Amino acid sequence: MKKRISFTKKNKSLIIWVFFIALPYFVQAQRRASNIISPEVLSDNSVVFKVKAPNAKSVQVAGTWSKGYKPNEMIKKDSVFEVKVGPLPSDMYEYDIVIDGIPMLDPLNTMVTRDGAWIQNRLMVPGGLADIIDVKSVPHGDLKSVWYDSPTIGTQQRRMFIYTPPNYDKNNKKYPVLYLLHGGGGDEEVWLSRGRANYILDNLIAAGKAEPMIVVITNGNAVTPAAPLDRPAAMQNKVPSGIGSMAAGTFEKSLIKDVIPYVESNYRVIPDANHRAITGFSMGGYQTQNITNANPAMFKYIGVMSMGLFSTFRNDGSYKKEEHIKQLEELQRNNPKVYWIGIGNDDFLYKSVVEMRKLYDEIGFKYTYRENEGNHDWNSWRLYLSEFAPLLFK
Amino acid sequence: MKKRISFTKKNKSLIIWVFFIALPYFVQAQRRASNIISPEVLSDNSVVFKVKAPNAKSVQVAGTWSKGYKPNEMIKKDSVFEVKVGPLPSDMYEYDIVIDGIPMLDPLNTMVTRDGAWIQNRLMVPGGLADIIDVKSVPHGDLKSVWYDSPTIGTQQRRMFIYTPPNYDKNNKKYPVLYLLHGGGGDEEVWLSRGRANYILDNLIAAGKAEPMIVVITNGNAVTPAAPLDRPAAMQNKVPSGIGSMAAGTFEKSLIKDVIPYVESNYRVIPDANHRAITGFSMGGYQTQNITNANPAMFKYIGVMSMGLFSTFRNDGSYKKEEHIKQLEELQRNNPKVYWIGIGNDDFLYKSVVEMRKLYDEIGFKYTYRENEGNHDWNSWRLYLSEFAPLLFK
Repeated sequence: MKKRISFTKKNKSLIIWVFFIALPYFVQAQRRASNIISPEVLSDNSVVFKVKAPNAKSVQVAGTWSKGYKPNEMIKKDSVFEVKVGPLPSDMYEYDIVIDGIPMLDPLNTMVTRDGAWIQNRLMVPGGLADIIDVKSVPHGDLKSVWYDSPTIGTQQRRMFIYTPPNYDKNNKKYPVLYLLHGGGGDEEVWLSRGRANYILDNLIAAGKAEPMIVVITNGNAVTPAAPLDRPAAMQNKVPSGIGSMAAGTFEKSLIKDVIPYVESNYRVIPDANHRAITGFSMGGYQTQNITNANPAMFKYIGVMSMGLFSTFRNDGSYKKEEHIKQLEELQRNNPKVYWIGIGNDDFLYKSVVEMRKLYDEIGFKYTYRENEGNHDWNSWRLYLSEFAPLLFK
Repeated sequence: MKKRISFTKKNKSLIIWVFFIALPYFVQAQRRASNIISPEVLSDNSVVFKVKAPNAKSVQVAGTWSKGYKPNEMIKKDSVFEVKVGPLPSDMYEYDIVIDGIPMLDPLNTMVTRDGAWIQNRLMVPGGLADIIDVKSVPHGDLKSVWYDSPTIGTQQRRMFIYTPPNYDKNNKKYPVLYLLHGGGGDEEVWLSRGRANYILDNLIAAGKAEPMIVVITNGNAVTPAAPLDRPAAMQNKVPSGIGSMAAGTFEKSLIKDVIPYVESNYRVIPDANHRAITGFSMGGYQTQNITNANPAMFKYIGVMSMGLFSTFRNDGSYKKEEHIKQLEELQRNNPKVYWIGIGNDDFLYKSVVEMRKLYDEIGFKYTYRENEGNHDWNSWRLYLSEFAPLLFK
């Protein structure tokens, strides 16, 4: 940059102009390393990654297209490392660049998502599932981050997101509500950042595939009131204790006692079981089971994603099978319209779902089962939301 | 990690449990590189940075505490690079880690902000100005991302954020509105991500220093409807053309014709000049001048941050001084209650503000002038908002 611009009096005003307006673009251009475009999705949906790293010995790209996040080695040509991956199925993927063993963001890609401590780049491979995940030229619902009192958890206000469907502000209709829960390590931002829940709903509603609905996206960690940048700096390094938080069941109680009353008194909703749905993945799938087992008359639509019988892996003697069966029988008597179970055939919790289905089958508890080619990851959860939401409120 | 866990049948359920719940924490722990805490703010407000990078030759930290973003060299002790910076004045700072010449995020810090193509880590040094920027235990306003029609710009819906003050939903009061504009390279997220506008307002309102107000945060780039992750993937690499976008004045027109009518018909606002304020920095300071010069009866509170006379550096013959003076005289006749100018003494646009003040003084145009020890950066803009907001609607 310095070599290209000579600081003579003649072009001083130009220089100031260039720095003022164009500085961000220069930086971006520098990051873009002289006209390199990366990642580049080719017509066959293979993807070329390029990283300019003259001094590096090894550069890899590690992405969610690979089982187990196995890195792809990049090959050095002059000072640019390059690799072609795929062709990949149409979907959204996350990835890191790894230079000499250190994971980092792709310097050429400003699309960055966050899932707890995972800060990664985003890649979209169009033409199929990605079309339901992408931002399309359809009416968009609004999204509000609200702070609500949660006496069940503590004195501090807690933060959640509330999606209202397109036209919510242009009529007086009352709407059904979907409560959407995240997994261990995540927070209230992850169904948006990585899960793209609002755009999935926009696209499903625009296509007439899903009913217009309100979506409530909570923070399921009782020990943190909000995502990292939205809590006091002194809580910067506070990470939710998954086990403690889950075992206590505090979040589950607060959803019933604090969240639902807030939503039903601040939004135009139809406050009955026929118009309440709940789903979550992983930790959120466990919380979904806890909430619906303990409150069998609350929700007529229930989705359990990537989570089966907790006792399959926490066999500490606390599991009371008889009580669980009684709860399920009571839930069955309340006749849920949809009880949906989704699991990837390669998910490490697959067996826990086998055990759960075995129990449900034994007692004649009805459910819909969906098994995808997939893992315990966001590719599954976005897919599940795109399939679960169309089943609701019909 | 592998060494610590032996995969015997006996502890298989424990292992599954650990992977399921604790995987994100393991990853975080790995990133945290065995109990290293970094950055660490010491009691004298100096800050210690540590980076574990066994194979690196050079590690630096470059942050906004330094004029010109000059990097601090880190010194290797065993496999950990370390440096102490400061003591620093209490404030919020952004920084990169630079390993062997490649800028990247700090692997130990999950606090990440974005300003256009700048994705950086956040550091808070408490005890002074940071207290007005941080998330405090005070009532929080809600924040809504809304999509509005903007026929002035195009057919695509555009996105903006609307902050409503605490208790907005609990009464029927009507509120004044502040329109908040960003600089070149930024978008509608940057006054939140880097600017912390909602928390600054929360804290000022809680302290009784600012009137409760609605704050509208727009995307000032006519060519992009929203921030990167909130526009179609096909527009991923679209960067706003600062010069073209600014010269056309399209955004300015859309603020008057599309944004303000949307806000005034969808929110409980007092729709008169006494209850409208506008401010912006850099490009947004230019837009603020354009908007208020062309619409002298619209706003009684005007703030121009880090931007002076455009003609000082764009001397292309298009500047019509006589017209400009006529506009300013008309604006003066409308008697704005506050016309506030802020500039850092080290800002590269300092001279443009000297020229603007000279012109204003010549014609007797009244303004309040604030010069801080500072630069063309977020440390100035957060400071300005914390000083400008308390002047409004009193």
